[in-house]
Amino acid sequence: MNFNLSDLLGYSAAFMTTVAFVPQTLHSWRTRDLSGISLPMYTLFTLGVALWLGYGFAIGSLPVIVANAITLILAALVLWLKILSIRD
Amino acid sequence: MNFNLSDLLGYSAAFMTTVAFVPQTLHSWRTRDLSGISLPMYTLFTLGVALWLGYGFAIGSLPVIVANAITLILAALVLWLKILSIRD
Repeated sequence: MNFNLSDLLGYSAAFMTTVAFVPQTLHSWRTRDLSGISLPMYTLFTLGVALWLGYGFAIGSLPVIVANAITLILAALVLWLKILSIRD
Repeated sequence: MNFNLSDLLGYSAAFMTTVAFVPQTLHSWRTRDLSGISLPMYTLFTLGVALWLGYGFAIGSLPVIVANAITLILAALVLWLKILSIRD
């Protein structure tokens, strides 16, 4: 069995930063209180995560792909709730 | 000149997600209002960023190293402010 330290680091990192992001999404979803979310900054962040996903594919790093694919879905959801809250 | 799409993607991603993180840090620093920050989640996030930094070194990705080194400093500062706010 081939133990790979970099993969272990990457998946641990991916797990931690992704899990830490979930409560923000749940909070925004439940309360629909998006007042603390800045639209320009969150748009920039979501675009950045999309680029990280592209970068993950470009360098062939599965931890980067997995972490940013999940975070992109969560960030896009919060961004969508923010846009809805502005329109209302 | 050697144009490298993956580096361009990586640095753009690093710039966006890092810049998007700065206002949180400035807000916490100025207001010292850390009530919206969850200690367990922020601890998990900061540890995750530290592991991403290690992963960046392990796979030799400069964008991952640069982005996570800056984010680690910012996240550690917010975590420190949070811990101070609990002790007070």
